[in-house]
Amino acid sequence: MNPDAAAALFDELRDATASRRGVSRESYGPGEDKAIALIDREARARGLETGSDAAANLVISLPGRASETPYVACGSHLDSVPEGGNYDGAAGVVAGLAAMCRLLEEGTAPAHNVKTIALRGEESAWYGRACIGSSALFGRLTPEDLAAPHREGEGTLGAAMARTGADIARIARGDPLVDAARISGWLELHIEQGPVLVEDNIPVAVVSGIRGNIRHRRILCLGEAGHSGAVPRRLRRDAVFATARLIAALDDRWAERLEDGDDLVVTAGIVETDGRAHAMSRIPGELAFSFEARSQNGETLEAFYAVLQDECRRIAGERNVRFAFDRRVDTPPATMDADWRARLLRHAGRLGLPARTVPCGAGHDAALFAEAGIPSAMIFVRNEHGSHNPREAMRIDDFMKGCDLLYQGLLDPPR
Amino acid sequence: MNPDAAAALFDELRDATASRRGVSRESYGPGEDKAIALIDREARARGLETGSDAAANLVISLPGRASETPYVACGSHLDSVPEGGNYDGAAGVVAGLAAMCRLLEEGTAPAHNVKTIALRGEESAWYGRACIGSSALFGRLTPEDLAAPHREGEGTLGAAMARTGADIARIARGDPLVDAARISGWLELHIEQGPVLVEDNIPVAVVSGIRGNIRHRRILCLGEAGHSGAVPRRLRRDAVFATARLIAALDDRWAERLEDGDDLVVTAGIVETDGRAHAMSRIPGELAFSFEARSQNGETLEAFYAVLQDECRRIAGERNVRFAFDRRVDTPPATMDADWRARLLRHAGRLGLPARTVPCGAGHDAALFAEAGIPSAMIFVRNEHGSHNPREAMRIDDFMKGCDLLYQGLLDPPR
Repeated sequence: MNPDAAAALFDELRDATASRRGVSRESYGPGEDKAIALIDREARARGLETGSDAAANLVISLPGRASETPYVACGSHLDSVPEGGNYDGAAGVVAGLAAMCRLLEEGTAPAHNVKTIALRGEESAWYGRACIGSSALFGRLTPEDLAAPHREGEGTLGAAMARTGADIARIARGDPLVDAARISGWLELHIEQGPVLVEDNIPVAVVSGIRGNIRHRRILCLGEAGHSGAVPRRLRRDAVFATARLIAALDDRWAERLEDGDDLVVTAGIVETDGRAHAMSRIPGELAFSFEARSQNGETLEAFYAVLQDECRRIAGERNVRFAFDRRVDTPPATMDADWRARLLRHAGRLGLPARTVPCGAGHDAALFAEAGIPSAMIFVRNEHGSHNPREAMRIDDFMKGCDLLYQGLLDPPR
Repeated sequence: MNPDAAAALFDELRDATASRRGVSRESYGPGEDKAIALIDREARARGLETGSDAAANLVISLPGRASETPYVACGSHLDSVPEGGNYDGAAGVVAGLAAMCRLLEEGTAPAHNVKTIALRGEESAWYGRACIGSSALFGRLTPEDLAAPHREGEGTLGAAMARTGADIARIARGDPLVDAARISGWLELHIEQGPVLVEDNIPVAVVSGIRGNIRHRRILCLGEAGHSGAVPRRLRRDAVFATARLIAALDDRWAERLEDGDDLVVTAGIVETDGRAHAMSRIPGELAFSFEARSQNGETLEAFYAVLQDECRRIAGERNVRFAFDRRVDTPPATMDADWRARLLRHAGRLGLPARTVPCGAGHDAALFAEAGIPSAMIFVRNEHGSHNPREAMRIDDFMKGCDLLYQGLLDPPR
């Protein structure tokens, strides 16, 4: 598949699933159906076999020389967030298709089977559950997940999956739908959702690992409200000043961790004084904020969580406030396979590409494959303006470099 | 008036104006009318003359030996916030009444006339305008003020004032209703609205000055939103971290100003990320916050405002964010008369009370008298739990000490 053909296929995908703004490919819904039908048609037109697995994901196959060996799978997802961009997910599916077409055209079919899986339902935007198609493959969906209502309140995930022909009975029982032991690798190409490759002027990179996280949706700083003119500094229990001190301290400690070489990002995305009581001339007695730390390393996460606790204790003492924590929620980091990473970096070097690794901050289907014990790796392609919005901008020549790297990976002998 | 009589009068005021919680004495409304009628009745019963001025404030008079001399006035206001406390305002009126009764009873009528003015409409809670009764006296109400709607949307301030018999035509023209040159002093006793006297275990204090302020209702910190997992620290433009740094820096600079002996309080009462866009896993691209600095000294205010500007510039550069300011709003400090302050401190010493001054952070009618060129002073009485709530707690023995101090002030010869 040449760059023009790839660009034309992306254009066709965009046109087929366009919404008011950007594209809308609902998980296990109509836009995703259209995208799957389009890729299915293209794969068959190019001489590849296609079929559906029991989670209704599209599977494109290229038999190897010895059909009973384990297979290497690549791909990504075909759904999008509402009014999202054209490349988040689809780039990895088109790349798998392009690499398999090249194997077929060049007659360089490897010894092992190769598959591209166009997964469904990766975006949590529709049913509040991410990586639905890959979770189903590994028996990781629960009846509660299947009962989850659509974002607009009508219908459930289970009903939507049943409509696409997924085997709801097996999925609800938590039966694995594939034999993970027969998959010798999962290679997922994806647009970078952050700005690192753009800022560092690098077309593609190998993902070092998928960050896990520790989160609190709502930490309350509790002080005491009072008249802003009538309470001197020494007697204040100001929740805003205390929390500002906390966040500034976390920022310092974060910078120290980075200087020591740790992988870490820290975010307080939600910060709010109490709208029922706050006023310009009222000392804020309460402030709610969210906390999130992400790292590829579970120990780094735990260590920074301890920093949070320490700094809260220190500031509570200094400022005469209290921090009340809601439930801590953990997502463990997903390790990318060291051998696959090394192979891809070697291939990058041979292709004249920078042999660069970057961490991945967002969740991806690759984490599900890795958790299932399948050696997994990811390739990031440079992309401007982040993802989950219509302004996603991946250049086709960057994409083709990613396809070259994926192609080399698929040629590698299974381990 | 002995302590039991004072306590009984406060109880009667509370009972007559009780609402669902606490008391509600609406500015130029029914609860305020009841309080005025009750004080009027009490004053006349004790042999004092009463009347109304052209702003419908209650005026209680005790003719001096030379009736044509300037007079000394004392008092405070009789309205309250909705569901407020019993002492905010009323304490100063009852104190004036008590001191005048004592002058009458002891036959120690001073050479000059003495008046207690029970002002109306000090609380901005009802019509969004503070110190209405005193502003009217000095020609400081505008037609716009009179057109202000009631907090619940029905009726205007002007209509409410007209109902009480106030001379709306003169008030709307901005005519002064009293000759400020004939008032040789304004002495206002008020409960402290902050915790200083409680914390420092002092029953009464002399107010050093009424703090002015510089305010911004809404300063926006503008950075760039992004995926919390995908953007490394060095590329972030996080509005929450930037503002936390700003507030922490302002806190440090505030502490320095206090060490240098300045009078200053600083508050950011409202802090909010954008509720339409914020999320736990989204780098906050925007944060709105309020700013308020208060001081008795206008130069201190300007100097700290320059600190705000400097720190915003510094942090904008360091963090690649921008701070957008709404309109700056100023209220100048009100100077308490040095001679009256010195007299009251001397009296306190003679009465065996601590000769202590404290700054006043909230606005008071005394500021209007001071701005009109009348030498003004305030006496604070210890009070727990702040004001504007039903938990206000002033002890009657503290109140009586405040009355003693006020009585001595009224005995002083006019200047």
